Amino acid sequence: MLSPVSEQTKVVLTEADIPTHWYNIVADLPTPPAPPLHPATDQPLVPDDLIALFPMGLIEQEASAERWIPIPDEVREVYKLWRPSPMYRAYRLEKALGTPARIYYKYEGASPVGSHKANSSVPQAYFNKIAGRTRLTTETGAGQWGAALAFAAETFGLKCDIWQVRSSFEGKPYRHAQMEVFGAWSIGSPSETTEIGRKLREQFPDTSGSLGMAISEAVEAAVKDPNASYSLGSVLNHVLLHQTVIGQEALKQLEVFGEPKLDYLFACAGGGSNLGGISFPVIRENLEGRQNTTIVACEPKAAPSLTEGEFRYDFGDTAGMTPKLKMYTLGQNFVPDPVHAGGLRYHGMAPLVSHAYHEGLVKAISVRQREAFEAGVLFSRAEGIIPASESNHAIAGAIRQAKQAAEGEVILIGVSGSGLLDLPAYTEFLSGEMADS
Amino acid sequence: MLSPVSEQTKVVLTEADIPTHWYNIVADLPTPPAPPLHPATDQPLVPDDLIALFPMGLIEQEASAERWIPIPDEVREVYKLWRPSPMYRAYRLEKALGTPARIYYKYEGASPVGSHKANSSVPQAYFNKIAGRTRLTTETGAGQWGAALAFAAETFGLKCDIWQVRSSFEGKPYRHAQMEVFGAWSIGSPSETTEIGRKLREQFPDTSGSLGMAISEAVEAAVKDPNASYSLGSVLNHVLLHQTVIGQEALKQLEVFGEPKLDYLFACAGGGSNLGGISFPVIRENLEGRQNTTIVACEPKAAPSLTEGEFRYDFGDTAGMTPKLKMYTLGQNFVPDPVHAGGLRYHGMAPLVSHAYHEGLVKAISVRQREAFEAGVLFSRAEGIIPASESNHAIAGAIRQAKQAAEGEVILIGVSGSGLLDLPAYTEFLSGEMADS
Repeated sequence: MLSPVSEQTKVVLTEADIPTHWYNIVADLPTPPAPPLHPATDQPLVPDDLIALFPMGLIEQEASAERWIPIPDEVREVYKLWRPSPMYRAYRLEKALGTPARIYYKYEGASPVGSHKANSSVPQAYFNKIAGRTRLTTETGAGQWGAALAFAAETFGLKCDIWQVRSSFEGKPYRHAQMEVFGAWSIGSPSETTEIGRKLREQFPDTSGSLGMAISEAVEAAVKDPNASYSLGSVLNHVLLHQTVIGQEALKQLEVFGEPKLDYLFACAGGGSNLGGISFPVIRENLEGRQNTTIVACEPKAAPSLTEGEFRYDFGDTAGMTPKLKMYTLGQNFVPDPVHAGGLRYHGMAPLVSHAYHEGLVKAISVRQREAFEAGVLFSRAEGIIPASESNHAIAGAIRQAKQAAEGEVILIGVSGSGLLDLPAYTEFLSGEMADS
Repeated sequence: MLSPVSEQTKVVLTEADIPTHWYNIVADLPTPPAPPLHPATDQPLVPDDLIALFPMGLIEQEASAERWIPIPDEVREVYKLWRPSPMYRAYRLEKALGTPARIYYKYEGASPVGSHKANSSVPQAYFNKIAGRTRLTTETGAGQWGAALAFAAETFGLKCDIWQVRSSFEGKPYRHAQMEVFGAWSIGSPSETTEIGRKLREQFPDTSGSLGMAISEAVEAAVKDPNASYSLGSVLNHVLLHQTVIGQEALKQLEVFGEPKLDYLFACAGGGSNLGGISFPVIRENLEGRQNTTIVACEPKAAPSLTEGEFRYDFGDTAGMTPKLKMYTLGQNFVPDPVHAGGLRYHGMAPLVSHAYHEGLVKAISVRQREAFEAGVLFSRAEGIIPASESNHAIAGAIRQAKQAAEGEVILIGVSGSGLLDLPAYTEFLSGEMADS
């Protein structure tokens, strides 16, 4: 039994506290990050190289060195549906652990789609809308990004076509249904709807699909339709930029909780958008001497790009169709074990996170999935919220630290999403049948 | 495309605004409700008749005529995990409907278990804990109540044993997993774990189970164990009492939105706890002349107890083991069509809601499930939140009214839960395969 508590449990803030600007860490990095390269020429990209894929508003953000980029009113209005997201003091988790630390968590799972992904899908849809594009194409694995983009496209009246890795499309009907409710068209990939899809099906008739294949289909569809854009849910600068609303709100909420000093920040990292979003505003505080926070990226042991990869130029996709990005990578052909945290199964890491890690501004650990789910179950039983498979990696990292914490240490966990659609993975863990990848 | 808006979208309030008391409508009803009767003697129940099933704290609430019943601090502390629940202005839904009405919705789906059920499971677990009981037994259909009680039992260190209708236990693995994550034991009913269960399995070897059977098993288990109590998720006075936090918060939130006058309130009604919880504080406003709100209970056409039932004494369960309650009922043997809104498939209606309806304080309509899901899809696409199957009935009722509303009419919808675990039902609707029960 966890005894009750009598202090403030959560800080929600008001709609007036939704950030008015996104924070661009490029303006503050001690050294400039390496530019993306054209896949054919190995020359630094110019904005025009991307115009077939993205609207100019997003391309400008991708290349910007401005510190603060205004959030359009139309985007802030949609953010109001779930932002500011709540921050909780994890009293019951602290008691369950017997830690002398004070633990807080910032929860993104209360967004309409259940994860932080909507923070970027909404501005992506908006900038496409004002550029006159009428259709978005994307890939999705487990479906969190697909659902977020479907919601955003519906909100701004755009068509949304989603290629979902076939094994997930067939095996995870809930996410697929969520995209349908928001009016999106989706299909298992590889499919008969694209040239590359037909080629892949001929070549690998029994394939269950992969993110790399689905990206290729979505990119082909966008390039062939002048009214369409391709949308990506992580990795790129503009995606991480949009996610900085998380970290900005978090700093304000810690202030309301009366915590001037944050010692540790734990966030899960796959492509890097969640980690970047919550940590970049904190890195700025560190760089300006207002904080001395240790930021820890928590990767799955199955896709340990920061902890075991190389820092070099690599393609963002398997087929080598995307620009080359300077990042920590396990290689474009690396196929992670089929762990449940589908959102973290990426061979590389966002260039901005990679750069920050290389500069020593971020640390990293890797976590096996049984430790992650053990942490998730403990968290659920203490706090009531069942976290997403991905978020469990951050909770596991925080628990490691809480067990050795000094009196009064302050730990913040980024809980990036809800685990309600991950419940079968919890069953697998509780029954003892989960592989310890 | 739904164009953006520029006004306040939601009112969340702060933890200090969580009600300090539950509101007991018995104190204000123009005529006293009829008492429950002992099933064997047909004499009015006395508190001792219930002591094998419930702790004295809850029995006292069941029989109380006090207007305000204090919420223990220990319960308010747990409420802080999700209360106050948010109220939204449905700007985008209004635009999609082209209605001159102003539509608001109070959303209970952000609770840790995804529905309003936690408002009562938490105090039920608490009053059992302080009475020294160590184990709770209950039944559940689709699993919303089971998950809520599992969460509450874990929070107060109680064992929780759940008999779930076998067809749901086997066919809805997500809810079942949710109960497991919170540490509850659950089994498909009828089971080999009780006398009545074994008897039923012998008698009906191929049965897929029913709520009536599962209640019988949970009651038998509680009665046979002096350390155990039985817990119910709706129907009884004390359950509706706990849910009045919803309506109290809603009145305050309308005030913050600058709405002195509420014209219509729509809420779904199965056993009656959601409808009672949001409407009883509004009925008080009506009775005292501060409001003139039309309150509309929205039932499924498949279980139309208010709109097509009789107002008479009936048993709460199929087997006739419970006290007799004066209520609108379709008869203890009535078996509703297998509609997706499992939480509304009850043959009767809470005695307090029945009484209020009989007195003309509440109106009622019935809604077929295709109209309900059509409303749910429209709501999802406008507001981002995918509502529970049950809540869709209230949304459908509100949409009927919004389409014929006068300029400036104010409509409030009680959205009792999240539909993330109901997504397969949405797929069935969108594919055109849903029966119109």
